[in-house]
Amino acid sequence: MLVLLDQTRLPGEDSELACTDAPALVEAIRTLAVRGAPLLGIAGAYGVALAAARGYDVADAARMLAGARPTAVNLARGVRDAQEAHAAALAAGGDERTAAAAALAAARALHREDAEASGRMARKGLALLDELVPGGQHRVLTHCNTGALVSGGEGTAFAVALAAHREGKLRRLWVDETRPLLQGARLTAYEAARAGMAYTLLTDNAAGSLFAAGEVDAVLIGADRIAADGSVANKVGSYPLAVLARYHHVPFIVVAPVTTIDMDTPDGAAIEVEQRSGHEVTEAILPSGRGAGGETGGGVPIAPLRTQAYNPAFDVTPPELVTAVVTEWGVVSPVTEGALDQLCSRSRQVSMS
Amino acid sequence: MLVLLDQTRLPGEDSELACTDAPALVEAIRTLAVRGAPLLGIAGAYGVALAAARGYDVADAARMLAGARPTAVNLARGVRDAQEAHAAALAAGGDERTAAAAALAAARALHREDAEASGRMARKGLALLDELVPGGQHRVLTHCNTGALVSGGEGTAFAVALAAHREGKLRRLWVDETRPLLQGARLTAYEAARAGMAYTLLTDNAAGSLFAAGEVDAVLIGADRIAADGSVANKVGSYPLAVLARYHHVPFIVVAPVTTIDMDTPDGAAIEVEQRSGHEVTEAILPSGRGAGGETGGGVPIAPLRTQAYNPAFDVTPPELVTAVVTEWGVVSPVTEGALDQLCSRSRQVSMS
Repeated sequence: MLVLLDQTRLPGEDSELACTDAPALVEAIRTLAVRGAPLLGIAGAYGVALAAARGYDVADAARMLAGARPTAVNLARGVRDAQEAHAAALAAGGDERTAAAAALAAARALHREDAEASGRMARKGLALLDELVPGGQHRVLTHCNTGALVSGGEGTAFAVALAAHREGKLRRLWVDETRPLLQGARLTAYEAARAGMAYTLLTDNAAGSLFAAGEVDAVLIGADRIAADGSVANKVGSYPLAVLARYHHVPFIVVAPVTTIDMDTPDGAAIEVEQRSGHEVTEAILPSGRGAGGETGGGVPIAPLRTQAYNPAFDVTPPELVTAVVTEWGVVSPVTEGALDQLCSRSRQVSMS
Repeated sequence: MLVLLDQTRLPGEDSELACTDAPALVEAIRTLAVRGAPLLGIAGAYGVALAAARGYDVADAARMLAGARPTAVNLARGVRDAQEAHAAALAAGGDERTAAAAALAAARALHREDAEASGRMARKGLALLDELVPGGQHRVLTHCNTGALVSGGEGTAFAVALAAHREGKLRRLWVDETRPLLQGARLTAYEAARAGMAYTLLTDNAAGSLFAAGEVDAVLIGADRIAADGSVANKVGSYPLAVLARYHHVPFIVVAPVTTIDMDTPDGAAIEVEQRSGHEVTEAILPSGRGAGGETGGGVPIAPLRTQAYNPAFDVTPPELVTAVVTEWGVVSPVTEGALDQLCSRSRQVSMS
């Protein structure tokens, strides 16, 4: 059984969701009870281990899990890692039980590696921030949620802000509410409040006023997939921030583990962007999870009935708008295909050695 | 008595709000039961007429009404027009009753003029759209609400889109939901649906994806105040659209009556931007009006308790990002202080002649 914190109920409730098989986990992924690129990878790997342990068809479970959400590459990767460990154990003559244990070990390794990666990204990200924004009192704008809720450790972009906070270098964390599902208001504000950070919430469209007033020193965001050319898919609303950051000469920094870099996806146009139900936009999403996803809505209508909505879950920022990509293996800046390729090769060599 | 449509209850309810004195109207303005630059001017003028008719102190009522919201210049202007008509009637030897009638006549004239202005802006705006975007099938993005709900006529930016729709030239109206109070989702979608327009709702932060995909031919917005240098104060979220429009070489068009141009405000920095309660951001705004404004909140919390929010009601777009200002007296493009000044002089000469 896989027990998850149900993120759709935060910050109102700390409630757990138990998944006893892969279809239940797929549902939890689709409704965003479990979400965030690194965590999706870990959850996917545990899902495969769960299917193996319970005697389900592992290939079926892996296919189902990998396809639950298309954009975050980490999900497919985590699933693949656990599935490969399972297959390798069988190929080496192990029985089903040994193979299931191997899948579980792979999931645990991914979980542990993600925690370590988080700490390394935080250190490298803070060093970059100190270099790009001298003075040591940073006002950082972030979008969506990239903290401990999405990670085996303390997250990606949020972990950098947290490291700055711990060193007394964070003047303000500006938190975009992140419509439609309000991950900023519900989750990032929750994590910032718990950590005692100086944070302020804003509607996504108020970020422009902050830039114009010179109140933003850097934008820090996570990523769901980074294509070979350096295009970054992340939560919808990231691209407008990148354009604003460029217009105002503010660094736009992407923080993500190397597993988010997908050299098999050539460019931004090749990234599949998940389109979600229009009900997330036409109905009020309450923190109880009512109206959060699903085909039939069920929330409180805020637009006329039968209103059609455009609701992409992600957008794609081209590399020329990204100041730097911070990974646990190093910082890439400027963001070029060659530099990303080198970084990935280096990370693979070290991992295998 | 002044009877208003309570806009906080749309689209769920068509409910009326009766104001029997100026303080009640001030409250209706502050809670946004009545809102939108041109309508605020008309409501302010009627408010003065109401105070005069009921024997209240007209100067007191005028001061209170003009200060209800600071950014939209039309409010202060409408109040002043009615107050001046009242004073002129008294100065000419009229009694209180005659003076009250004069204030009411001034309010009615403003109401009628606004309806006429609306029709003229629509024609001029559509001609400009046809010129800037050849092909005659326009995909227009709009923000906030600028239709009949804010006007004695059919509105400002929305009236242009409606004119395009009536001539079979509107391919798509992209409607920004307009957080935090969702005037796009609640009011513009309502007006578009009633008019049978092809419209699609989106979260404000999804506009970037539309621009990137080449799905926006022009941005049409209203204005709450246009400074002498051409800086445009409008609903928060307008400025990020202007930056996106510039980055994507898309025309950014402001539609407003000449009364919105305030030659006494020299530039954008001199425009007072109203800061509203953080509860509008930290609590879910339901169409019943719960949580919509007010100091104590009362909505459904969506962020942790005691979360501080940055909630400016407006932002300011500098003239270099504005392709054109469309008024009932003509189109200003490029937007310069000289051209705006000429337009205002022309409108005053014609009005007086």
